Amino acid sequence: MTTAIFPGSFDPFHNGHYEIVERARRLFDRVIVAVLSNSAKTDPIFSPEARQEMISEALVGFENVGVVQMHTLVVDLAAQVGADVIIRGLRAVSDFEYELQMSQMNQQLSGIETFLIPTGANCSFLSSRLLREVASFGGDVSAFVPAVVAKRMIGRST
Amino acid sequence: MTTAIFPGSFDPFHNGHYEIVERARRLFDRVIVAVLSNSAKTDPIFSPEARQEMISEALVGFENVGVVQMHTLVVDLAAQVGADVIIRGLRAVSDFEYELQMSQMNQQLSGIETFLIPTGANCSFLSSRLLREVASFGGDVSAFVPAVVAKRMIGRST
Amino acid sequence: MTTAIFPGSFDPFHNGHYEIVERARRLFDRVIVAVLSNSAKTDPIFSPEARQEMISEALVGFENVGVVQMHTLVVDLAAQVGADVIIRGLRAVSDFEYELQMSQMNQQLSGIETFLIPTGANCSFLSSRLLREVASFGGDVSAFVPAVVAKRMIGRST
Amino acid sequence: MTTAIFPGSFDPFHNGHYEIVERARRLFDRVIVAVLSNSAKTDPIFSPEARQEMISEALVGFENVGVVQMHTLVVDLAAQVGADVIIRGLRAVSDFEYELQMSQMNQQLSGIETFLIPTGANCSFLSSRLLREVASFGGDVSAFVPAVVAKRMIGRST
Amino acid sequence: MTTAIFPGSFDPFHNGHYEIVERARRLFDRVIVAVLSNSAKTDPIFSPEARQEMISEALVGFENVGVVQMHTLVVDLAAQVGADVIIRGLRAVSDFEYELQMSQMNQQLSGIETFLIPTGANCSFLSSRLLREVASFGGDVSAFVPAVVAKRMIGRST
Amino acid sequence: MTTAIFPGSFDPFHNGHYEIVERARRLFDRVIVAVLSNSAKTDPIFSPEARQEMISEALVGFENVGVVQMHTLVVDLAAQVGADVIIRGLRAVSDFEYELQMSQMNQQLSGIETFLIPTGANCSFLSSRLLREVASFGGDVSAFVPAVVAKRMIGRST
Repeated sequence: MTTAIFPGSFDPFHNGHYEIVERARRLFDRVIVAVLSNSAKTDPIFSPEARQEMISEALVGFENVGVVQMHTLVVDLAAQVGADVIIRGLRAVSDFEYELQMSQMNQQLSGIETFLIPTGANCSFLSSRLLREVASFGGDVSAFVPAVVAKRMIGRST
Repeated sequence: MTTAIFPGSFDPFHNGHYEIVERARRLFDRVIVAVLSNSAKTDPIFSPEARQEMISEALVGFENVGVVQMHTLVVDLAAQVGADVIIRGLRAVSDFEYELQMSQMNQQLSGIETFLIPTGANCSFLSSRLLREVASFGGDVSAFVPAVVAKRMIGRST
Repeated sequence: MTTAIFPGSFDPFHNGHYEIVERARRLFDRVIVAVLSNSAKTDPIFSPEARQEMISEALVGFENVGVVQMHTLVVDLAAQVGADVIIRGLRAVSDFEYELQMSQMNQQLSGIETFLIPTGANCSFLSSRLLREVASFGGDVSAFVPAVVAKRMIGRST
Repeated sequence: MTTAIFPGSFDPFHNGHYEIVERARRLFDRVIVAVLSNSAKTDPIFSPEARQEMISEALVGFENVGVVQMHTLVVDLAAQVGADVIIRGLRAVSDFEYELQMSQMNQQLSGIETFLIPTGANCSFLSSRLLREVASFGGDVSAFVPAVVAKRMIGRST
Repeated sequence: MTTAIFPGSFDPFHNGHYEIVERARRLFDRVIVAVLSNSAKTDPIFSPEARQEMISEALVGFENVGVVQMHTLVVDLAAQVGADVIIRGLRAVSDFEYELQMSQMNQQLSGIETFLIPTGANCSFLSSRLLREVASFGGDVSAFVPAVVAKRMIGRST
Repeated sequence: MTTAIFPGSFDPFHNGHYEIVERARRLFDRVIVAVLSNSAKTDPIFSPEARQEMISEALVGFENVGVVQMHTLVVDLAAQVGADVIIRGLRAVSDFEYELQMSQMNQQLSGIETFLIPTGANCSFLSSRLLREVASFGGDVSAFVPAVVAKRMIGRST
């Protein structure tokens, strides 16, 4: 049985993230979405708990997918849950450099592999940071995130 | 059962390629190395047949790995062999752009996924083109390719 | 009156190119598509004349757009036709570097500006080179090019 | 009549920004420089009001250029002022990735186009962040910004 | 006599930095490691004094290498110590863009040259930021930093 | 005594190359410009002998600079002439990736260092390929190359 772990901040979880899970769940026996809890980011829009809830709801139809919070290094969580591979979406050059560094560091730390999954063309412009920016000005991001996330983002800005 | 296809020119097959196969075969039930036959490249050092032979010999211990020649689009070969995913190594920015374009084109053509596997740090500088350049000046590339490839490259330049 | 010149090889002209013309014609009074004639590329699929014909047909509804062949430097053609600006599509990092070099060279040569127009997300994976590759294996590219181009590419491969 | 909007933080407005305005005003009937007011950046050197004043003074000779503050999404301001296109300078790869994401997001949000204008070679190393860094150590940035900005930056550090 | 200055935050100093010093000291008569004191970074793990101490200890065997704190622009320090060249390690694309901007700015400010030294393959994934992240979760970074740094990082997290 | 080797095709040698030599000769005791003889490039404009002559003439005032032809790997030439370091100009991202690969390969082959020297802003758009393109259309490249090269390029196209 192969298990993939998909770590991230997911603040918010958007359609590009959804697409990665949707693809990976067909290739691996189990996919675990791991929500980074103690992010260094100064101004999260959702708490880790809220993010875990929304992601669980957005992915409710996928039987072989779980959602957890992560309070450790991803390599330590991977060891705990018996993950064989880390998966990450890949969108742009600056992504790529960071992901390459992280993947090599994680392999040095524990030997775990990382697979990078290119974002589909229609999600290539999506990033959580950009969505936070748009939402902070009252922009409508409902076309770019799962319905459950859109609903909470609207509720938040009223 | 998951099947991954690993397409490339492999002229020559080097340690970076070997590493990708070695990793992928642990995550997928079957890995098929597909040697591109009618490359546009003007001056191959090995024929597709020779490449297939060398790769087969270099990977002889891996039971769930096969090596074939490819005379079609990779998406067509993937359909023939029932592959679920295309895998490609990822090394540098220029790689990345091309791989991203290819992966999106292939998804448009047939819906197949592509997973990109970051090259380990110690293979990050390897490319077949660079090895061909070094070998053309009589440089010793045996540290960078499987033994069977090194032997034939030496034989070729004498 | 502002005139923009859109130079390229267009071998073949694809939907990403079409999109650039379609956008530019709304912002400039006149758009001139300039087909590079004496390309260094060794193996064109269409002659410059055929490319000019197909592009003219694909753009037939656009009144303020013309299609010409280019036998000179783009800055010289720009001077001849009284163009104010060169426009180019922009897709990827390697594109960007080359386009930046060209734009600075052209500005040094004649003072002309270059505006770069980002490709829409759904065309971001398209390149003439990739389409030539797909077509050379008998792949169906009709979803990625104007109908007139698709028809001729199919005719060509039979 | 074509109207271009040039949004940014402009903290400070430098010669690279000036160059973009100077070029764009020749191609478009009207250019509106839009100063982002509520930047997330923690430590601005100038208030949005001061930036608007300095930019207006620096551009005083340009009749078809206006300077405004922006308290909304750029697509909303564009709709209010009837802008046809967003323009942005383009300098480096990391710029490019971000600009590409922004342009695709803005097109999704409102359909507006973005044109990217390559920075001239002699301004390619300029960024507001770098100028803030140099000025914070008492470095002389007067060669890189309009005179009105230089004067205020010197006044500020004494 | 040639003197090279190697400026940075070095929070922490890691094996990639060590490698740069080790190489540069063979090519230049004198190498000065300059620790940036008033970094804008909000949460340093070591004070500039501690960093200077650790670097000095890590480089104790190198006779032509000195370690200083830097409270000014690097071009001003270079003038004070009579440095002929600034050296910087080079690892990735985002590095490159920033380093290129800095080198051109420094050349404009004082005429000083910058030489960029590519990081060896086995250090290409190392960055101080990544090491701070790993250490913040209790990860073991001792394989990536000099012994003196590893000892202090462990002491810090207990 | 430190010796730097500056390898390249130099077809043609342009102002960006000149600038690298001019800088390096102040930092190293000896600089050797090494003209690659058997380039794979199909259509050189000047023979290696002509290039060596032109470069020698362009650099005639520099006493510690020599110009040679190179018929071997650069690491072998470096060993023959006792070079301590390879130097290369650095201009753009695609440059950077290739240069990084080459530098790591050369270090693996012989242990030699590579230093990358950022091109000045006013030469950042120059490349031999671009100059060949411009010249092939009869464009005037005399502003971008040493006088001796300009003279021969004009003579060639008449």
